[in-house]
Amino acid sequence: VTLVNWTNEEGVRFQPGLTGSAGFAGLLDGPISGVDGANFHGELARIGYRGDVPAIPVAAYYELHIEQGPVLETAGAPIGVVEGVQGVRWLDVELIGEDRHAGTTPAGDRRDAFMAAAALAIGMREWALALDGSIRLTFGQVVVDPGSINTIPGRAQMGVDIRHADAAVIDRVEAEIQAKVAAMEPGEGVQGQVTRRMDVPPVAFDPVLRGSLQTAADALGLDWRALPSGAMHDASNLARIAPSAMLFVPSRGGISHNEAEWTEPADIAAGVEVLAQAVVRHATRGIDGVGA
Amino acid sequence: VTLVNWTNEEGVRFQPGLTGSAGFAGLLDGPISGVDGANFHGELARIGYRGDVPAIPVAAYYELHIEQGPVLETAGAPIGVVEGVQGVRWLDVELIGEDRHAGTTPAGDRRDAFMAAAALAIGMREWALALDGSIRLTFGQVVVDPGSINTIPGRAQMGVDIRHADAAVIDRVEAEIQAKVAAMEPGEGVQGQVTRRMDVPPVAFDPVLRGSLQTAADALGLDWRALPSGAMHDASNLARIAPSAMLFVPSRGGISHNEAEWTEPADIAAGVEVLAQAVVRHATRGIDGVGA
Repeated sequence: VTLVNWTNEEGVRFQPGLTGSAGFAGLLDGPISGVDGANFHGELARIGYRGDVPAIPVAAYYELHIEQGPVLETAGAPIGVVEGVQGVRWLDVELIGEDRHAGTTPAGDRRDAFMAAAALAIGMREWALALDGSIRLTFGQVVVDPGSINTIPGRAQMGVDIRHADAAVIDRVEAEIQAKVAAMEPGEGVQGQVTRRMDVPPVAFDPVLRGSLQTAADALGLDWRALPSGAMHDASNLARIAPSAMLFVPSRGGISHNEAEWTEPADIAAGVEVLAQAVVRHATRGIDGVGA
Repeated sequence: VTLVNWTNEEGVRFQPGLTGSAGFAGLLDGPISGVDGANFHGELARIGYRGDVPAIPVAAYYELHIEQGPVLETAGAPIGVVEGVQGVRWLDVELIGEDRHAGTTPAGDRRDAFMAAAALAIGMREWALALDGSIRLTFGQVVVDPGSINTIPGRAQMGVDIRHADAAVIDRVEAEIQAKVAAMEPGEGVQGQVTRRMDVPPVAFDPVLRGSLQTAADALGLDWRALPSGAMHDASNLARIAPSAMLFVPSRGGISHNEAEWTEPADIAAGVEVLAQAVVRHATRGIDGVGA
């Protein structure tokens, strides 16, 4: 049994993160540069953390993480058994209208790229909610040019994050954004284009290992829920080379990527107990002994 | 008769512009600093343009300008007799939600400040069009924080430009924005505040001077239209101290605040003829002779 704390999971200075697990799984290709231009391997050596990748054969991989969402807290369950990791697709939407004088241009003559962007975001939220409530659709980057209070915006750029456990659903969301942008010109006098910035397919975790975590939670008398992961995790990389699974513990208020992120120590302890019991059962009885 | 080309009409380096006419009309108070920190009077002296404000008594003020909008071109009329200048009010709208993880936060738990901003802009456009098609409403400044593609925006800031010839209509638009922002919390989980950045009341030009311009256009056989000005002009300042009026010539495609701004030389010449004839008639016959 090997206990691992992967390096650079979050990916702030060295993007996009999950670096240690990606290296272990053989998914890295070429040097890694930081946002400050620093070299990743050089920085590891500088702080005394650089080693050789050990050729450990992996029979099974289990990972414990905070949920970063509200599902477990809402359900009052201390343990989440993760079904898989949603696919993530990032799109860049660029809309081009025309810079015009805010005071002199009548409503009917405007080609307002921000209004087109706003209508697209509102329309897509409505469409996605109607299709499947579990779609995660976020317009997190919005830049409006020229950004002058007395000029109608001639350009709007949006970075879009789409997530779902089923890649076909992500395809449908992307296709609808493409269709809405293509249909925009008659309505808004705005033309747009949509390009992909990143695409990470969904991962389904191993059903036998998930069963092992459920059995351990049951044996400890801990209520659990099966749920998908909205965030990417190191287990996504390990799943490429070995049977893998994850468990979650609750995040207070579902809050993450925020200074208020918090998990109760008792919940962390419960998660560690489930992890330890599943790993020990797996290591001592073999996978066939799981659930016996 | 004095011919004037007012300094710093546009107001790019030294904001908000209309500086020469504001100084002449006694509306300036205190030193004027540029966006680069330069002093206005010092820069005028440096380029040899600094003078004393002459104590010229003004019996009447006429101004010629491009329309910066599409009304005259659409009407096929070379001359516009300006009824007045719309009032301009600038608002700052700040919306506060909560930064959250784009992948883990379900649709129902989001407090997305950009979505709230988008819904406000779309809702206000619809509301304003239904109230009065001549309202000019522009969301030209939009800033979304933290601006990360995988984080739900916790803050959105919009600079709003509202214009109309009737200050009471501008009041109604501002009140509706205030009401929509106040009503936001139940729907979006977002709280906002609206503050005024600038407020310039509408100006109505002198009816006798407008008649003088109409008479001059008719005498020259030039088709004219009465129309409001969507942009602010030096005549807005002069109207505070003397009977004032303006005439417009067409802007191709109605385009302004854009490199494609253009007026045909023949239209400029027609505008100069009307201006000259109105001024000469006024100067030689007195205002009572106008239209005689």
